[in-house]
Amino acid sequence: MIGRLCIIGVGLIGGSIALAARHRRLVNAIVGYDPDAANLQQALALGIVDSISSDVAEAAKQADIVVIAAPVGAMESILLALQPVWSEHCIYTDTGSTKVDVVAAARRVFHRLPGNLVPGHPIAGAERSGAGAAQAELYVGRKVILTPLPETDAGSVHRISGLWEALGARVFCMDPVHHDEVLAATSHLPHVLAFVLTEMLGRKDEQREIFQYAAGGFRDFTRIASSDPQMWRDICLANRKEIVLLIEQYRDALGQVADLLKQGDATHLLKLFADAQSARQRFLDQLEK
Amino acid sequence: MIGRLCIIGVGLIGGSIALAARHRRLVNAIVGYDPDAANLQQALALGIVDSISSDVAEAAKQADIVVIAAPVGAMESILLALQPVWSEHCIYTDTGSTKVDVVAAARRVFHRLPGNLVPGHPIAGAERSGAGAAQAELYVGRKVILTPLPETDAGSVHRISGLWEALGARVFCMDPVHHDEVLAATSHLPHVLAFVLTEMLGRKDEQREIFQYAAGGFRDFTRIASSDPQMWRDICLANRKEIVLLIEQYRDALGQVADLLKQGDATHLLKLFADAQSARQRFLDQLEK
Repeated sequence: MIGRLCIIGVGLIGGSIALAARHRRLVNAIVGYDPDAANLQQALALGIVDSISSDVAEAAKQADIVVIAAPVGAMESILLALQPVWSEHCIYTDTGSTKVDVVAAARRVFHRLPGNLVPGHPIAGAERSGAGAAQAELYVGRKVILTPLPETDAGSVHRISGLWEALGARVFCMDPVHHDEVLAATSHLPHVLAFVLTEMLGRKDEQREIFQYAAGGFRDFTRIASSDPQMWRDICLANRKEIVLLIEQYRDALGQVADLLKQGDATHLLKLFADAQSARQRFLDQLEK
Repeated sequence: MIGRLCIIGVGLIGGSIALAARHRRLVNAIVGYDPDAANLQQALALGIVDSISSDVAEAAKQADIVVIAAPVGAMESILLALQPVWSEHCIYTDTGSTKVDVVAAARRVFHRLPGNLVPGHPIAGAERSGAGAAQAELYVGRKVILTPLPETDAGSVHRISGLWEALGARVFCMDPVHHDEVLAATSHLPHVLAFVLTEMLGRKDEQREIFQYAAGGFRDFTRIASSDPQMWRDICLANRKEIVLLIEQYRDALGQVADLLKQGDATHLLKLFADAQSARQRFLDQLEK
Protein backbone atom coordinates (compact mmCIF):
# COMPACT_ATOMS: atom_id res chain seq x y z
CA MET A 1 0.00 0.00 0.00
CA ILE A 2 1.23 3.46 -0.89
CA GLY A 3 0.25 6.28 1.44
CA ARG A 4 0.84 9.19 -0.86
CA LEU A 5 1.61 8.93 -4.57
CA CYS A 6 2.81 11.98 -6.45
CA ILE A 7 2.47 12.14 -10.23
CA ILE A 8 4.58 14.78 -11.97
CA GLY A 9 2.90 15.08 -15.37
CA VAL A 10 -0.67 13.80 -15.48
CA GLY A 11 -0.83 12.98 -19.19
CA LEU A 12 -1.52 9.61 -20.82
CA ILE A 13 1.33 7.87 -19.01
CA GLY A 14 1.19 9.51 -15.59
CA GLY A 15 -2.60 9.76 -15.56
CA SER A 16 -2.91 6.06 -16.40
CA ILE A 17 -0.58 5.13 -13.53
CA ALA A 18 -2.79 7.15 -11.16
CA LEU A 19 -6.02 5.62 -12.49
CA ALA A 20 -4.61 2.09 -12.42
CA ALA A 21 -3.28 2.47 -8.85
CA ARG A 22 -6.60 3.87 -7.65
CA HIS A 23 -8.72 1.19 -9.38
CA ARG A 24 -6.56 -1.48 -7.75
CA ARG A 25 -6.78 0.24 -4.34
CA LEU A 26 -2.99 0.47 -4.08
CA VAL A 27 -2.90 4.03 -2.80
CA ASN A 28 -4.46 6.31 -0.20
CA ALA A 29 -3.94 9.69 -1.81
CA ILE A 30 -2.69 10.91 -5.18
CA VAL A 31 -1.36 14.39 -5.76
CA GLY A 32 -0.72 15.69 -9.23
CA TYR A 33 1.44 18.34 -10.82
CA ASP A 34 1.41 19.40 -14.45
CA PRO A 35 2.91 22.46 -16.18
CA ASP A 36 -0.33 22.71 -18.23
CA ALA A 37 -2.86 24.18 -15.76
CA ALA A 38 -5.86 23.18 -17.88
CA ASN A 39 -4.65 19.59 -18.12
CA LEU A 40 -4.05 19.53 -14.36
CA GLN A 41 -7.57 20.81 -13.66
CA GLN A 42 -8.96 18.17 -16.01
CA ALA A 43 -7.05 15.45 -14.14
CA LEU A 44 -8.65 16.66 -10.90
CA ALA A 45 -12.11 16.90 -12.47
CA LEU A 46 -11.81 13.37 -13.89
CA GLY A 47 -10.86 12.02 -10.45
CA ILE A 48 -7.43 10.92 -11.68
CA VAL A 49 -5.79 12.75 -8.78
CA ASP A 50 -7.17 13.76 -5.35
CA SER A 51 -5.33 17.03 -5.11
CA ILE A 52 -3.15 19.22 -7.27
CA SER A 53 -0.30 21.61 -6.86
CA SER A 54 1.12 24.16 -9.24
CA ASP A 55 4.56 23.64 -7.75
CA VAL A 56 6.67 20.53 -8.36
CA ALA A 57 8.45 20.58 -4.97
CA GLU A 58 5.20 21.22 -3.12
CA ALA A 59 3.49 18.31 -4.91
CA ALA A 60 6.32 15.91 -4.05
CA LYS A 61 6.49 16.76 -0.33
CA GLN A 62 5.38 13.95 2.01
CA ALA A 63 5.01 11.56 -0.94
CA ASP A 64 6.01 7.92 -0.54
CA ILE A 65 6.51 7.45 -4.26
CA VAL A 66 7.07 10.18 -6.86
CA VAL A 67 6.58 9.26 -10.51
CA ILE A 68 8.08 11.72 -12.99
CA ALA A 69 6.01 11.18 -16.13
CA ALA A 70 7.38 14.09 -18.10
CA PRO A 71 8.90 14.44 -21.59
CA VAL A 72 12.60 13.59 -21.44
CA GLY A 73 13.48 17.19 -22.34
CA ALA A 74 11.92 18.37 -19.05
CA MET A 75 13.58 15.82 -16.75
CA GLU A 76 16.55 17.93 -15.66
CA SER A 77 14.49 20.97 -14.70
CA ILE A 78 12.10 18.76 -12.74
CA LEU A 79 14.96 17.06 -10.88
CA LEU A 80 16.37 20.52 -10.12
CA ALA A 81 13.02 21.57 -8.68
CA LEU A 82 12.82 18.36 -6.62
CA GLN A 83 16.39 18.53 -5.35
CA PRO A 84 15.75 20.86 -2.35
CA VAL A 85 12.93 18.60 -1.06
CA TRP A 86 14.49 15.26 -2.07
CA SER A 87 13.70 12.79 0.72
CA GLU A 88 15.33 9.56 1.77
CA HIS A 89 11.89 8.36 2.89
CA CYS A 90 10.56 8.52 -0.65
CA ILE A 91 11.25 6.51 -3.81
CA TYR A 92 11.44 8.31 -7.14
CA THR A 93 11.04 6.87 -10.61
CA ASP A 94 10.53 8.24 -14.09
CA THR A 95 8.85 7.04 -17.28
CA GLY A 96 11.08 8.72 -19.88
CA SER A 97 11.46 7.11 -23.30
CA THR A 98 15.26 7.40 -23.13
CA LYS A 99 17.37 6.44 -20.16
CA VAL A 100 21.03 7.39 -20.63
CA ASP A 101 20.18 11.11 -20.66
CA VAL A 102 17.86 10.88 -17.65
CA VAL A 103 20.63 9.22 -15.65
CA ALA A 104 23.07 11.90 -16.85
CA ALA A 105 20.63 14.66 -15.87
CA ALA A 106 20.31 13.16 -12.36
CA ARG A 107 24.09 12.99 -12.00
CA ARG A 108 24.37 16.65 -13.01
CA VAL A 109 21.71 17.76 -10.54
CA PHE A 110 22.81 15.62 -7.56
CA HIS A 111 26.52 15.20 -8.41
CA ARG A 112 25.83 11.46 -7.99
CA LEU A 113 22.97 9.11 -8.87
CA PRO A 114 20.53 9.04 -5.92
CA GLY A 115 20.04 5.47 -4.69
CA ASN A 116 16.29 6.02 -4.40
CA LEU A 117 15.81 7.11 -8.04
CA VAL A 118 14.81 4.16 -10.23
CA PRO A 119 14.96 5.04 -13.94
CA GLY A 120 12.14 3.36 -15.85
CA HIS A 121 10.24 3.24 -19.11
CA PRO A 122 6.80 1.69 -19.68
CA ILE A 123 6.52 0.59 -23.33
CA ALA A 124 3.00 1.85 -23.71
CA GLY A 125 2.89 4.92 -25.86
CA ALA A 126 0.04 6.05 -28.03
CA GLU A 127 -0.69 8.90 -30.42
CA ARG A 128 -3.19 10.30 -27.91
CA SER A 129 -2.00 12.40 -25.03
CA GLY A 130 -3.21 14.37 -22.02
CA ALA A 131 -5.17 13.47 -18.88
CA GLY A 132 -8.27 12.81 -20.97
CA ALA A 133 -6.47 9.91 -22.67
CA ALA A 134 -5.54 8.14 -19.41
CA GLN A 135 -6.81 4.58 -18.99
CA ALA A 136 -6.79 2.38 -15.87
CA GLU A 137 -5.91 -0.71 -17.94
CA LEU A 138 -3.17 0.84 -20.09
CA TYR A 139 -0.39 -1.21 -18.49
CA VAL A 140 -2.05 -4.62 -18.40
CA GLY A 141 0.24 -7.03 -20.24
CA ARG A 142 2.62 -4.21 -21.22
CA LYS A 143 6.36 -4.35 -20.70
CA VAL A 144 8.17 -1.94 -18.40
CA ILE A 145 11.94 -1.61 -18.54
CA LEU A 146 13.78 -0.47 -15.41
CA THR A 147 17.41 0.58 -15.78
CA PRO A 148 18.90 0.57 -12.27
CA LEU A 149 22.63 1.19 -11.94
CA PRO A 150 25.05 -0.18 -9.32
CA GLU A 151 24.31 2.90 -7.16
CA THR A 152 20.57 2.19 -7.15
CA ASP A 153 19.09 0.71 -3.92
CA ALA A 154 17.87 -2.85 -4.45
CA GLY A 155 14.93 -2.07 -2.15
CA SER A 156 13.85 0.88 -4.28
CA VAL A 157 14.01 -1.21 -7.45
CA HIS A 158 11.97 -3.91 -5.72
CA ARG A 159 9.30 -1.39 -4.69
CA ILE A 160 8.93 0.21 -8.13
CA SER A 161 9.00 -3.18 -9.81
CA GLY A 162 6.21 -4.31 -7.47
CA LEU A 163 4.15 -1.21 -8.28
CA TRP A 164 4.33 -1.88 -12.02
CA GLU A 165 3.47 -5.53 -11.56
CA ALA A 166 0.49 -4.55 -9.45
CA LEU A 167 -0.69 -2.39 -12.38
CA GLY A 168 -0.57 -5.47 -14.63
CA ALA A 169 2.78 -4.87 -16.33
CA ARG A 170 5.74 -7.19 -16.79
CA VAL A 171 9.06 -5.76 -15.60
CA PHE A 172 12.46 -6.23 -17.24
CA CYS A 173 15.77 -4.80 -16.08
CA MET A 174 18.64 -3.78 -18.33
CA ASP A 175 21.36 -1.17 -18.35
CA PRO A 176 20.47 2.29 -19.71
CA VAL A 177 22.81 2.03 -22.72
CA HIS A 178 21.25 -1.23 -23.87
CA HIS A 179 17.77 0.25 -23.34
CA ASP A 180 18.57 3.21 -25.55
CA GLU A 181 20.04 0.94 -28.26
CA VAL A 182 17.01 -1.34 -28.30
CA LEU A 183 14.44 1.45 -28.24
CA ALA A 184 16.31 3.39 -30.93
CA ALA A 185 15.76 0.39 -33.21
CA THR A 186 12.21 -0.63 -32.36
CA SER A 187 10.67 2.74 -31.57
CA HIS A 188 12.75 5.84 -32.28
CA LEU A 189 13.90 4.90 -35.80
CA PRO A 190 10.39 3.83 -36.92
CA HIS A 191 9.01 7.15 -35.66
CA VAL A 192 11.67 9.10 -37.56
CA LEU A 193 10.97 7.06 -40.73
CA ALA A 194 7.23 7.68 -40.46
CA PHE A 195 7.64 11.41 -39.77
CA VAL A 196 10.04 11.82 -42.70
CA LEU A 197 7.85 9.88 -45.14
CA THR A 198 4.67 11.68 -44.15
CA GLU A 199 6.32 15.09 -44.34
CA MET A 200 7.85 14.28 -47.76
CA LEU A 201 4.59 12.98 -49.20
CA GLY A 202 2.70 15.88 -47.64
CA ARG A 203 4.80 18.24 -49.73
CA LYS A 204 4.08 16.18 -52.87
CA ASP A 205 0.38 16.09 -51.99
CA GLU A 206 0.26 19.88 -51.97
CA GLN A 207 1.50 19.90 -55.56
CA ARG A 208 -0.57 17.03 -56.87
CA GLU A 209 -3.07 14.93 -54.95
CA ILE A 210 -1.67 11.64 -53.77
CA PHE A 211 -3.15 11.10 -50.29
CA GLN A 212 -6.52 10.69 -52.00
CA TYR A 213 -5.38 7.31 -53.31
CA ALA A 214 -3.69 6.07 -50.15
CA ALA A 215 -5.41 3.30 -48.23
CA GLY A 216 -5.22 1.14 -45.11
CA GLY A 217 -1.60 0.08 -45.53
CA PHE A 218 -0.52 3.71 -45.62
CA ARG A 219 -2.76 4.58 -42.68
CA ASP A 220 -1.13 1.93 -40.48
CA PHE A 221 2.38 2.68 -41.72
CA THR A 222 2.07 6.37 -40.86
CA ARG A 223 0.04 6.05 -37.64
CA ILE A 224 3.06 6.93 -35.48
CA ALA A 225 3.57 10.13 -37.53
CA SER A 226 0.54 11.44 -35.62
CA SER A 227 2.56 11.29 -32.38
CA ASP A 228 3.33 14.43 -30.40
CA PRO A 229 6.06 16.37 -32.28
CA GLN A 230 7.56 18.01 -29.18
CA MET A 231 7.83 14.73 -27.30
CA TRP A 232 9.53 13.12 -30.29
CA ARG A 233 11.88 16.03 -30.84
CA ASP A 234 13.02 15.58 -27.23
CA ILE A 235 13.41 11.80 -27.56
CA CYS A 236 15.34 12.08 -30.82
CA LEU A 237 17.70 14.68 -29.42
CA ALA A 238 18.17 12.75 -26.17
CA ASN A 239 19.08 9.54 -28.01
CA ARG A 240 20.55 11.09 -31.13
CA LYS A 241 23.79 9.14 -31.09
CA GLU A 242 22.02 5.79 -31.44
CA ILE A 243 19.38 7.15 -33.81
CA VAL A 244 21.89 8.75 -36.19
CA LEU A 245 23.80 5.46 -36.31
CA LEU A 246 20.64 3.56 -37.24
CA ILE A 247 19.57 6.17 -39.80
CA GLU A 248 22.91 5.72 -41.54
CA GLN A 249 22.57 1.92 -41.51
CA TYR A 250 19.05 2.23 -42.84
CA ARG A 251 20.08 4.63 -45.60
CA ASP A 252 22.74 2.13 -46.65
CA ALA A 253 20.20 -0.72 -46.68
CA LEU A 254 17.81 1.40 -48.76
CA GLY A 255 20.63 2.25 -51.16
CA GLN A 256 21.27 -1.46 -51.63
CA VAL A 257 17.62 -2.03 -52.49
CA ALA A 258 17.72 0.81 -54.99
CA ASP A 259 20.74 -0.92 -56.57
CA LEU A 260 18.89 -4.26 -56.73
CA LEU A 261 16.00 -2.49 -58.45
CA LYS A 262 18.27 -0.72 -60.93
CA GLN A 263 19.97 -4.04 -61.73
CA GLY A 264 16.61 -5.85 -61.95
CA ASP A 265 17.95 -8.39 -59.44
CA ALA A 266 14.74 -10.35 -58.81
CA THR A 267 16.46 -13.10 -56.81
CA HIS A 268 18.01 -10.89 -54.12
CA LEU A 269 14.94 -8.67 -53.97
CA LEU A 270 12.75 -11.70 -53.29
CA LYS A 271 15.17 -12.96 -50.63
CA LEU A 272 15.16 -9.60 -48.87
CA PHE A 273 11.36 -9.35 -48.86
CA ALA A 274 10.99 -12.98 -47.73
CA ASP A 275 13.53 -12.47 -44.93
CA ALA A 276 11.58 -9.39 -43.84
CA GLN A 277 8.32 -11.33 -43.87
CA SER A 278 9.74 -14.10 -41.67
CA ALA A 279 11.41 -11.61 -39.32
CA ARG A 280 8.04 -9.95 -38.82
CA GLN A 281 6.45 -13.30 -38.10
CA ARG A 282 9.12 -13.89 -35.45
CA PHE A 283 8.23 -10.52 -33.93
CA LEU A 284 4.50 -11.34 -33.96
CA ASP A 285 5.14 -14.71 -32.31
CA GLN A 286 7.02 -12.93 -29.51
CA LEU A 287 4.34 -10.29 -29.13
CA GLU A 288 1.79 -12.96 -28.29
CA LYS A 289 3.98 -14.60 -25.65
CA MET B 1 -26.29 -8.39 -65.93
CA ILE B 2 -23.22 -10.40 -66.92
CA GLY B 3 -23.87 -13.77 -68.55
CA ARG B 4 -20.49 -15.31 -67.98
CA LEU B 5 -17.72 -13.82 -65.85
CA CYS B 6 -14.24 -15.28 -66.03
CA ILE B 7 -11.79 -14.70 -63.18
CA ILE B 8 -8.14 -15.37 -63.99
CA GLY B 9 -6.56 -15.73 -60.54
CA VAL B 10 -9.03 -16.50 -57.76
CA GLY B 11 -7.04 -15.08 -54.85
CA LEU B 12 -8.05 -12.31 -52.47
CA ILE B 13 -8.69 -9.79 -55.25
CA GLY B 14 -10.23 -12.03 -57.95
CA GLY B 15 -12.11 -14.19 -55.47
CA SER B 16 -13.61 -11.12 -53.82
CA ILE B 17 -14.82 -9.80 -57.20
CA ALA B 18 -16.52 -13.16 -57.84
CA LEU B 19 -18.11 -13.30 -54.38
CA ALA B 20 -19.25 -9.69 -54.57
CA ALA B 21 -20.77 -10.12 -58.06
CA ARG B 22 -22.59 -13.27 -56.98
CA HIS B 23 -23.93 -11.78 -53.73
CA ARG B 24 -25.27 -8.84 -55.70
CA ARG B 25 -26.80 -11.13 -58.37
CA LEU B 26 -24.89 -9.40 -61.14
CA VAL B 27 -23.83 -12.56 -62.93
CA ASN B 28 -25.23 -15.87 -64.23
CA ALA B 29 -22.10 -18.00 -64.23
CA ILE B 30 -18.54 -17.56 -62.98
CA VAL B 31 -15.65 -19.61 -64.29
CA GLY B 32 -12.28 -19.53 -62.55
CA TYR B 33 -8.69 -20.21 -63.50
CA ASP B 34 -5.70 -20.25 -61.18
CA PRO B 35 -2.17 -21.59 -61.67
CA ASP B 36 -2.36 -23.01 -58.13
CA ALA B 37 -4.56 -26.12 -58.50
CA ALA B 38 -5.23 -26.38 -54.74
CA ASN B 39 -6.33 -22.74 -54.56
CA LEU B 40 -8.57 -23.25 -57.60
CA GLN B 41 -10.20 -26.31 -56.02
CA GLN B 42 -10.73 -24.31 -52.83
CA ALA B 43 -12.42 -21.51 -54.81
CA LEU B 44 -14.80 -24.08 -56.28
CA ALA B 45 -15.41 -25.74 -52.90
CA LEU B 46 -16.14 -22.35 -51.28
CA GLY B 47 -18.66 -21.54 -54.03
CA ILE B 48 -16.63 -18.56 -55.22
CA VAL B 49 -16.78 -19.87 -58.80
CA ASP B 50 -19.28 -22.22 -60.50
CA SER B 51 -16.78 -24.00 -62.68
CA ILE B 52 -13.04 -24.15 -63.11
CA SER B 53 -10.54 -24.73 -65.88
CA SER B 54 -6.87 -25.54 -65.74
CA ASP B 55 -6.34 -23.64 -68.98
CA VAL B 56 -6.45 -19.84 -69.26
CA ALA B 57 -7.78 -19.74 -72.85
CA GLU B 58 -10.40 -22.40 -72.11
CA ALA B 59 -11.60 -20.48 -69.03
CA ALA B 60 -11.95 -17.24 -71.01
CA LYS B 61 -13.94 -18.71 -73.93
CA GLN B 62 -17.55 -17.48 -74.17
CA ALA B 63 -17.00 -15.05 -71.28
CA ASP B 64 -18.65 -11.62 -71.39
CA ILE B 65 -16.14 -10.14 -69.01
CA VAL B 66 -12.67 -11.48 -68.19
CA VAL B 67 -10.95 -10.13 -65.07
CA ILE B 68 -7.21 -10.81 -64.91
CA ALA B 69 -6.47 -10.71 -61.19
CA ALA B 70 -2.88 -11.93 -61.40
CA PRO B 71 0.43 -10.62 -60.04
CA VAL B 72 1.83 -8.02 -62.44
CA GLY B 73 4.77 -10.30 -63.25
CA ALA B 74 2.36 -12.85 -64.77
CA MET B 75 0.34 -10.41 -66.93
CA GLU B 76 2.27 -10.84 -70.18
CA SER B 77 2.13 -14.65 -70.18
CA ILE B 78 -1.60 -14.53 -69.42
CA LEU B 79 -2.24 -12.07 -72.26
CA LEU B 80 -0.20 -14.34 -74.56
CA ALA B 81 -2.38 -17.30 -73.56
CA LEU B 82 -5.54 -15.24 -74.12
CA GLN B 83 -4.44 -13.79 -77.45
CA PRO B 84 -5.60 -16.74 -79.66
CA VAL B 85 -9.10 -16.65 -78.15
CA TRP B 86 -9.34 -12.86 -77.72
CA SER B 87 -12.92 -11.89 -78.57
CA GLU B 88 -14.47 -8.62 -79.67
CA HIS B 89 -17.64 -9.69 -77.86
CA CYS B 90 -15.88 -9.71 -74.51
CA ILE B 91 -14.46 -6.97 -72.29
CA TYR B 92 -11.17 -7.57 -70.50
CA THR B 93 -9.80 -5.83 -67.45
CA ASP B 94 -7.00 -6.40 -64.97
CA THR B 95 -6.36 -5.56 -61.32
CA GLY B 96 -2.56 -5.19 -61.39
CA SER B 97 -0.90 -2.88 -58.87
CA THR B 98 1.12 -1.18 -61.61
CA LYS B 99 -0.28 0.02 -64.91
CA VAL B 100 2.44 1.29 -67.28
CA ASP B 101 3.96 -2.19 -67.54
CA VAL B 102 0.60 -3.92 -68.04
CA VAL B 103 -0.17 -1.56 -70.92
CA ALA B 104 3.33 -2.21 -72.34
CA ALA B 105 2.83 -5.99 -72.04
CA ALA B 106 -0.48 -5.74 -73.92
CA ARG B 107 1.16 -3.70 -76.69
CA ARG B 108 3.90 -6.31 -77.03
CA VAL B 109 1.42 -9.18 -77.21
CA PHE B 110 -1.12 -7.54 -79.55
CA HIS B 111 1.18 -5.04 -81.35
CA ARG B 112 -1.42 -2.46 -80.33
CA LEU B 113 -3.54 -1.81 -77.25
CA PRO B 114 -6.85 -3.71 -77.66
CA GLY B 115 -9.80 -1.33 -77.34
CA ASN B 116 -11.66 -3.82 -75.15
CA LEU B 117 -8.90 -4.10 -72.53
CA VAL B 118 -9.50 -1.71 -69.63
CA PRO B 119 -6.46 -1.52 -67.34
CA GLY B 120 -7.52 -1.17 -63.70
CA HIS B 121 -6.38 -1.30 -60.10
CA PRO B 122 -8.61 -1.69 -57.04
CA ILE B 123 -6.87 -0.11 -54.03
CA ALA B 124 -7.81 -2.89 -51.67
CA GLY B 125 -4.80 -4.99 -50.79
CA ALA B 126 -4.22 -6.89 -47.61
CA GLU B 127 -1.50 -9.08 -46.13
CA ARG B 128 -3.78 -12.09 -46.51
CA SER B 129 -4.01 -13.88 -49.84
CA GLY B 130 -5.64 -16.84 -51.58
CA ALA B 131 -9.28 -17.81 -52.26
CA GLY B 132 -9.83 -18.42 -48.56
CA ALA B 133 -9.24 -14.70 -47.90
CA ALA B 134 -11.89 -13.53 -50.41
CA GLN B 135 -14.69 -11.34 -49.03
CA ALA B 136 -17.92 -10.25 -50.73
CA GLU B 137 -17.68 -6.79 -49.15
CA LEU B 138 -14.00 -6.12 -49.84
CA TYR B 139 -14.69 -3.35 -52.35
CA VAL B 140 -17.40 -1.45 -50.52
CA GLY B 141 -16.21 2.14 -50.21
CA ARG B 142 -12.86 1.31 -51.77
CA LYS B 143 -11.32 3.26 -54.62
CA VAL B 144 -10.66 1.71 -58.02
CA ILE B 145 -8.42 3.43 -60.53
CA LEU B 146 -8.97 2.75 -64.23
CA THR B 147 -6.27 3.86 -66.66
CA PRO B 148 -7.87 3.84 -70.13
CA LEU B 149 -5.81 5.21 -73.03
CA PRO B 150 -7.03 7.00 -76.18
CA GLU B 151 -7.25 3.58 -77.90
CA THR B 152 -9.58 2.21 -75.22
CA ASP B 153 -13.31 1.93 -76.16
CA ALA B 154 -15.44 4.31 -74.14
CA GLY B 155 -18.12 1.61 -73.95
CA SER B 156 -15.70 -0.89 -72.40
CA VAL B 157 -14.59 1.65 -69.81
CA HIS B 158 -18.23 2.39 -69.02
CA ARG B 159 -19.03 -1.30 -68.56
CA ILE B 160 -16.04 -2.02 -66.26
CA SER B 161 -16.65 1.17 -64.33
CA GLY B 162 -20.29 0.11 -63.84
CA LEU B 163 -19.19 -3.32 -62.60
CA TRP B 164 -16.92 -1.82 -59.95
CA GLU B 165 -19.59 0.64 -58.85
CA ALA B 166 -22.06 -2.22 -58.55
CA LEU B 167 -19.57 -3.94 -56.20
CA GLY B 168 -19.61 -0.84 -53.99
CA ALA B 169 -16.40 0.81 -55.17
CA ARG B 170 -15.74 4.38 -56.29
CA VAL B 171 -14.07 4.65 -59.70
CA PHE B 172 -11.44 7.19 -60.73
CA CYS B 173 -9.74 7.49 -64.11
CA MET B 174 -6.18 8.67 -64.68
CA ASP B 175 -3.38 7.96 -67.11
CA PRO B 176 -1.12 4.96 -66.35
CA VAL B 177 1.99 7.08 -65.75
CA HIS B 178 0.24 9.20 -63.13
CA HIS B 179 -1.17 6.05 -61.52
CA ASP B 180 2.29 4.56 -61.17
CA GLU B 181 3.70 7.81 -59.75
CA VAL B 182 0.95 8.11 -57.15
CA LEU B 183 1.02 4.47 -56.10
CA ALA B 184 4.83 4.48 -55.92
CA ALA B 185 4.50 7.19 -53.27
CA THR B 186 1.56 5.96 -51.22
CA SER B 187 1.99 2.21 -51.53
CA HIS B 188 5.19 0.92 -53.16
CA LEU B 189 7.65 3.12 -51.24
CA PRO B 190 6.02 2.41 -47.83
CA HIS B 191 6.19 -1.32 -48.57
CA VAL B 192 9.89 -1.09 -49.47
CA LEU B 193 10.58 0.95 -46.31
CA ALA B 194 8.78 -1.58 -44.13
CA PHE B 195 10.49 -4.57 -45.75
CA VAL B 196 13.93 -2.97 -45.42
CA LEU B 197 13.42 -1.97 -41.77
CA THR B 198 12.05 -5.34 -40.74
CA GLU B 199 14.83 -7.23 -42.51
CA MET B 200 17.50 -4.98 -40.97
CA LEU B 201 16.10 -5.27 -37.45
CA GLY B 202 15.58 -9.01 -37.95
CA ARG B 203 19.33 -9.37 -38.43
CA LYS B 204 19.98 -7.32 -35.28
CA ASP B 205 17.42 -9.37 -33.38
CA GLU B 206 19.32 -12.55 -34.18
CA GLN B 207 22.41 -11.09 -32.51
CA ARG B 208 20.71 -9.52 -29.53
CA GLU B 209 17.01 -9.53 -28.71
CA ILE B 210 15.23 -6.38 -29.72
CA PHE B 211 11.82 -7.53 -31.02
CA GLN B 212 11.00 -8.56 -27.46
CA TYR B 213 10.73 -4.90 -26.53
CA ALA B 214 8.82 -3.73 -29.58
CA ALA B 215 5.17 -2.81 -29.15
CA GLY B 216 2.04 -1.66 -30.94
CA GLY B 217 3.65 1.20 -32.85
CA PHE B 218 6.17 -1.18 -34.36
CA ARG B 219 3.47 -3.75 -35.10
CA ASP B 220 1.45 -1.23 -37.14
CA PHE B 221 4.49 0.27 -38.81
CA THR B 222 5.70 -3.11 -40.06
CA ARG B 223 2.30 -4.66 -40.87
CA ILE B 224 2.87 -4.30 -44.64
CA ALA B 225 6.17 -6.19 -44.30
CA SER B 226 4.01 -9.30 -43.88
CA SER B 227 2.78 -8.87 -47.47
CA ASP B 228 3.50 -11.51 -50.11
CA PRO B 229 7.21 -11.23 -51.07
CA GLN B 230 6.75 -12.49 -54.66
CA MET B 231 3.91 -10.12 -55.39
CA TRP B 232 5.95 -7.21 -54.07
CA ARG B 233 9.09 -8.23 -55.93
CA ASP B 234 7.00 -8.10 -59.13
CA ILE B 235 5.44 -4.73 -58.27
CA CYS B 236 8.80 -3.18 -57.36
CA LEU B 237 10.45 -4.39 -60.56
CA ALA B 238 7.49 -3.33 -62.69
CA ASN B 239 7.52 0.21 -61.26
CA ARG B 240 11.20 0.44 -60.44
CA LYS B 241 11.84 3.73 -62.19
CA GLU B 242 9.38 5.63 -59.98
CA ILE B 243 10.34 3.70 -56.85
CA VAL B 244 14.09 4.24 -57.25
CA LEU B 245 13.43 7.97 -57.68
CA LEU B 246 11.42 8.09 -54.47
CA ILE B 247 13.96 5.97 -52.56
CA GLU B 248 16.65 8.51 -53.49
CA GLN B 249 14.45 11.44 -52.40
CA TYR B 250 13.67 9.64 -49.16
CA ARG B 251 17.34 8.86 -48.48
CA ASP B 252 18.12 12.56 -48.96
CA ALA B 253 15.33 13.56 -46.57
CA LEU B 254 16.62 11.06 -43.99
CA GLY B 255 20.14 12.38 -44.40
CA GLN B 256 18.83 15.87 -43.65
CA VAL B 257 17.23 14.64 -40.45
CA ALA B 258 20.46 12.93 -39.43
CA ASP B 259 22.18 16.31 -39.95
CA LEU B 260 19.58 18.10 -37.82
CA LEU B 261 20.17 15.54 -35.07
CA LYS B 262 23.95 15.86 -35.27
CA GLN B 263 23.63 19.66 -35.10
CA GLY B 264 21.08 19.42 -32.26
CA ASP B 265 18.77 21.64 -34.31
CA ALA B 266 15.64 21.39 -32.15
CA THR B 267 13.76 24.08 -34.08
CA HIS B 268 13.89 22.45 -37.50
CA LEU B 269 13.36 19.00 -36.06
CA LEU B 270 10.17 20.20 -34.36
CA LYS B 271 8.99 21.86 -37.56
CA LEU B 272 9.55 18.69 -39.57
CA PHE B 273 7.68 16.50 -37.07
CA ALA B 274 4.84 19.01 -36.75
CA ASP B 275 4.53 19.28 -40.56
CA ALA B 276 4.39 15.48 -40.73
CA GLN B 277 1.70 15.37 -38.06
CA SER B 278 -0.48 17.87 -39.91
CA ALA B 279 0.10 16.15 -43.27
CA ARG B 280 -1.11 12.89 -41.73
CA GLN B 281 -4.18 14.66 -40.37
CA ARG B 282 -4.91 15.91 -43.90
CA PHE B 283 -4.62 12.33 -45.15
CA LEU B 284 -6.98 11.07 -42.42
CA ASP B 285 -9.52 13.79 -43.22
CA GLN B 286 -9.51 12.66 -46.86
CA LEU B 287 -9.78 8.99 -45.94
CA GLU B 288 -13.07 9.66 -44.18
CA LYS B 289 -14.55 11.53 -47.14
